Amino acid sequence: MEHSFTPTIYHDTLGSHDPVLRVRSGDTIVTTTLDAAGRDADGEQAGPPGNPQTGPFHVEGAQPGDTLAVRFDRIRPNRGYGFCSRRLMPNVLDPGYRNDPASEEWLQFRIDPEAATATLEDGPQSLGDLTVLLRPMLGCFGVTPSRGQSISAATAGQHGGNMDYNGFVGGVTAYLPVFVEGALMHIGDGHAWQGDGEILGTGIETSMDVRLTVWVIKEKGINWPRGENDGYVFTVGNARPLDQALQHATTEMMRWLQDDFGLDGLSANILVGTYAEYDVGNVIDPAFTMVCKLPKRVLPPRAS
Amino acid sequence: MEHSFTPTIYHDTLGSHDPVLRVRSGDTIVTTTLDAAGRDADGEQAGPPGNPQTGPFHVEGAQPGDTLAVRFDRIRPNRGYGFCSRRLMPNVLDPGYRNDPASEEWLQFRIDPEAATATLEDGPQSLGDLTVLLRPMLGCFGVTPSRGQSISAATAGQHGGNMDYNGFVGGVTAYLPVFVEGALMHIGDGHAWQGDGEILGTGIETSMDVRLTVWVIKEKGINWPRGENDGYVFTVGNARPLDQALQHATTEMMRWLQDDFGLDGLSANILVGTYAEYDVGNVIDPAFTMVCKLPKRVLPPRAS
Amino acid sequence: MEHSFTPTIYHDTLGSHDPVLRVRSGDTIVTTTLDAAGRDADGEQAGPPGNPQTGPFHVEGAQPGDTLAVRFDRIRPNRGYGFCSRRLMPNVLDPGYRNDPASEEWLQFRIDPEAATATLEDGPQSLGDLTVLLRPMLGCFGVTPSRGQSISAATAGQHGGNMDYNGFVGGVTAYLPVFVEGALMHIGDGHAWQGDGEILGTGIETSMDVRLTVWVIKEKGINWPRGENDGYVFTVGNARPLDQALQHATTEMMRWLQDDFGLDGLSANILVGTYAEYDVGNVIDPAFTMVCKLPKRVLPPRAS
Amino acid sequence: MEHSFTPTIYHDTLGSHDPVLRVRSGDTIVTTTLDAAGRDADGEQAGPPGNPQTGPFHVEGAQPGDTLAVRFDRIRPNRGYGFCSRRLMPNVLDPGYRNDPASEEWLQFRIDPEAATATLEDGPQSLGDLTVLLRPMLGCFGVTPSRGQSISAATAGQHGGNMDYNGFVGGVTAYLPVFVEGALMHIGDGHAWQGDGEILGTGIETSMDVRLTVWVIKEKGINWPRGENDGYVFTVGNARPLDQALQHATTEMMRWLQDDFGLDGLSANILVGTYAEYDVGNVIDPAFTMVCKLPKRVLPPRAS
Repeated sequence: MEHSFTPTIYHDTLGSHDPVLRVRSGDTIVTTTLDAAGRDADGEQAGPPGNPQTGPFHVEGAQPGDTLAVRFDRIRPNRGYGFCSRRLMPNVLDPGYRNDPASEEWLQFRIDPEAATATLEDGPQSLGDLTVLLRPMLGCFGVTPSRGQSISAATAGQHGGNMDYNGFVGGVTAYLPVFVEGALMHIGDGHAWQGDGEILGTGIETSMDVRLTVWVIKEKGINWPRGENDGYVFTVGNARPLDQALQHATTEMMRWLQDDFGLDGLSANILVGTYAEYDVGNVIDPAFTMVCKLPKRVLPPRAS
Repeated sequence: MEHSFTPTIYHDTLGSHDPVLRVRSGDTIVTTTLDAAGRDADGEQAGPPGNPQTGPFHVEGAQPGDTLAVRFDRIRPNRGYGFCSRRLMPNVLDPGYRNDPASEEWLQFRIDPEAATATLEDGPQSLGDLTVLLRPMLGCFGVTPSRGQSISAATAGQHGGNMDYNGFVGGVTAYLPVFVEGALMHIGDGHAWQGDGEILGTGIETSMDVRLTVWVIKEKGINWPRGENDGYVFTVGNARPLDQALQHATTEMMRWLQDDFGLDGLSANILVGTYAEYDVGNVIDPAFTMVCKLPKRVLPPRAS
Repeated sequence: MEHSFTPTIYHDTLGSHDPVLRVRSGDTIVTTTLDAAGRDADGEQAGPPGNPQTGPFHVEGAQPGDTLAVRFDRIRPNRGYGFCSRRLMPNVLDPGYRNDPASEEWLQFRIDPEAATATLEDGPQSLGDLTVLLRPMLGCFGVTPSRGQSISAATAGQHGGNMDYNGFVGGVTAYLPVFVEGALMHIGDGHAWQGDGEILGTGIETSMDVRLTVWVIKEKGINWPRGENDGYVFTVGNARPLDQALQHATTEMMRWLQDDFGLDGLSANILVGTYAEYDVGNVIDPAFTMVCKLPKRVLPPRAS
Repeated sequence: MEHSFTPTIYHDTLGSHDPVLRVRSGDTIVTTTLDAAGRDADGEQAGPPGNPQTGPFHVEGAQPGDTLAVRFDRIRPNRGYGFCSRRLMPNVLDPGYRNDPASEEWLQFRIDPEAATATLEDGPQSLGDLTVLLRPMLGCFGVTPSRGQSISAATAGQHGGNMDYNGFVGGVTAYLPVFVEGALMHIGDGHAWQGDGEILGTGIETSMDVRLTVWVIKEKGINWPRGENDGYVFTVGNARPLDQALQHATTEMMRWLQDDFGLDGLSANILVGTYAEYDVGNVIDPAFTMVCKLPKRVLPPRAS
């Protein structure tokens, strides 16, 4: 079943808020997200700043200990512009390095949906017409965390959240551990484009049209977000420092191979050690994000 | 001028050892490296274990404050097998995670130079004929470090060293800061293949035929190793934790853009923030390695 | 005014739960806390495991942007025993170090309130009668965090929380930033004794009688928890890695000196650089805790 | 036997330099060290800047796999002044925090040996006559590292080096792993006083008279520096981040208890977990230093 949902309320935490919609496993939701500052497709302030989330969506039958699968069928900017920071975050540069761009104003990008591009407006002359091909993604999405927590949409954890990983684009299926009945999923913080690490502190922030489909996988517990696209399966660790995020992601991949692909420990070690590729998610939020990927072509058939 | 050099002595530190060969800026060296355990093309123990280095090569005219450019014209295994660890290093997994492969023996890979593949021998049945396409690289190379130091070939720093970055393959030009007269370059630790992070603690370790060309760039100081291939320029930070390695790499890229590409600070911020891609070098040596890459197609012409 | 409060409900998050008691600035609260596992003075399971919190206490007049001062007038075990882990947490030992105590059972300590001691029962013979002098403290306390969050009592942040710092003993006054109306303070996780870092994962966990007095300091914003005892003022940073916790604590001390003690930047640099002493709070929770202390005898009189 | 040694040569690395003196196990050396900038008791530039080291001292009979014990019998400033930085190192403050002391000039301290004090000269008025009681220590000392390395006196490792721990004062016995024949010990970088973490980047830097006694402990391998004073035994980890330095120190203490004090694993866990106290050594050098201490009064008698 497909639900068309127009949000009227937005939350700046992922938590046990009243569900805005109840759907079933296999259902599709067509909806929108505000930009990180809380503005909608018309540029109106429709929610609080700080990655306001659309949702939560209650998925019937999801129970703690299950896994929620979310396929992002489509993520598409629904307005003609986005904003972006002009200055690298201080924590990604050497302590003591002087980094002095002229001002703190936002950069403005014009988004051309036909050409699927975003172009910097009034940028420095030396950059010419800086234009990127759109790569729309959701910076922040997740389920309601464990233990009755409500966690700010500025940070990330085992429940997902503000991972700011530029691999969460249309076509990807994400897997999230379910901590509360109904899973209570949230989405927001769309980026028309984002560099590795989100080192400016933002991507090209804009409001989005989102279409997604959810499934409940019963009695399957996972520890950290997982995902897959056409070519890869991947696992996501959220923590500081990056080393720890990498530990979480690598360990989760080891579990996945042994739980679902029928591999013994030795085989899992060899496969991960040989083929793992790491992507840096964000390195500027309260929790950093590291992604461990394995090419699907090297995997045995899924046992479960 | 091309020098064919057959090494007879190997060092397990990068330091002010007697030069084994003196070359000029622009010269090419054709030589060999031992595997990480000190064995040569015939499997003979020819040097100490622990990434024994061929060299150092003295490059005429190189002075502290200059930069040494090294193009790896060719890196090719010169024997039919390599060895590899079978167990992920404990520091890449969650503390407390039980990881128990059956044994600690080395994996053996058969290297087929014609097919350009390496195939695991006697591996676990579930992995079938695990075969990778060769991607030969040097895990450890660098110049003699600053301040009269001799630093173990097991670790890395501003002078290069054991970065274990799988992007240092044939065709790449690396740039290294010169700290001593003649630069005194070392090379070793060839991997026929290595996954991201070298998380097994090894790649597929083998001896190599190496051909490289060196140039001295006068009065050009850099802080950290840099490199370029057909598509990218990149900078390399070596430190723990990964966050700090990332800071070094990102800061070095900021310097490069402003020093050589004529960009002002604001433009450099925008370009790095928009286009930077991070590669994880090693995450298991005493210093971790993070690489910051920028696509050449987005760069202005080099001003210097 | 003194309030004697007997809790009947406990929360395992610090959040905007219904206040259990409303008090005024200057009031004293006499109450109890459960042990970390949720058991009370009689050993009954009275709350959920995981540092269940007594509270929240609503302090009249406290508004976001104010500071809440909390003096712990008395912290005293209210039963004759406590439990403790027998095994160091894996993250405080070198990755790969084999640490194999005989079992995972809890250690039991007999608490003697007269002698003010805790003695290990049935411990290994080689330790004899391991006995510590009581040093009762609260491992977890804090206010309701910013932005509508409810945060697990297992971790810590700017709002306080599970800092597990063994300096939070009777006689200490803690300062906490107020994020919500009424501040909504929580207390729990009493330790009859705790070593530096809480590296076993627990202290000697027991239920407590607690007497505390609260004050609202209007229009005074602080960024991180602060405290003072007879000899020291101190600031507390909660983050991973320890380096970052240290940055937060040191920066907060710099602010304190300049905001309240009338020091200019240079003087604050010299004073902190000369006299700062660091204490390690916890190094095993999701956020580590580092404390920066300055002896009161070296401080100028408080300007505000 | 007591050797009075007047140095004429100084090294800015710890390495296999020609020994300046050969002594026997049990001998005492009376000598001097330069200040960190290379100036002697008369203020003359006598060595290179950067913690120039007196030595190396060759201790007869010391072999790789042994331990060198060094008792600092006396460490005493031999001139009337020292210098100190006026600005906290940027890495100990939050990224982005603006810290702007008026200038970068060195602070000058007048050292009064009679009163055993150091007094800031021409300091900011708000600090009055800032005076500290002398607590003279050696910031950098160690043996020649493993594997033929020469390592800068600016950093630290298993061989000791620039630990900048303010607990290395007169009366302390340090233990160092021996990596080369004769151990080849170096000393330097005296501080008349140093705050925790050496967060200014310096202590009160001055030249010193040093008297020390050395012993070789045969066939006793240790992994990291250890020490003891009247009240404590302690272990020292040198690495980044602090978390890793803490892992090294804690693990080394676990080994010490089991190797020398006859404790089984469980007892060692309980003792370290209950009584460990952590001191922060330096947090500004290339390797940070964390110290794990145990009170001697809680230890069983030494078994070896």
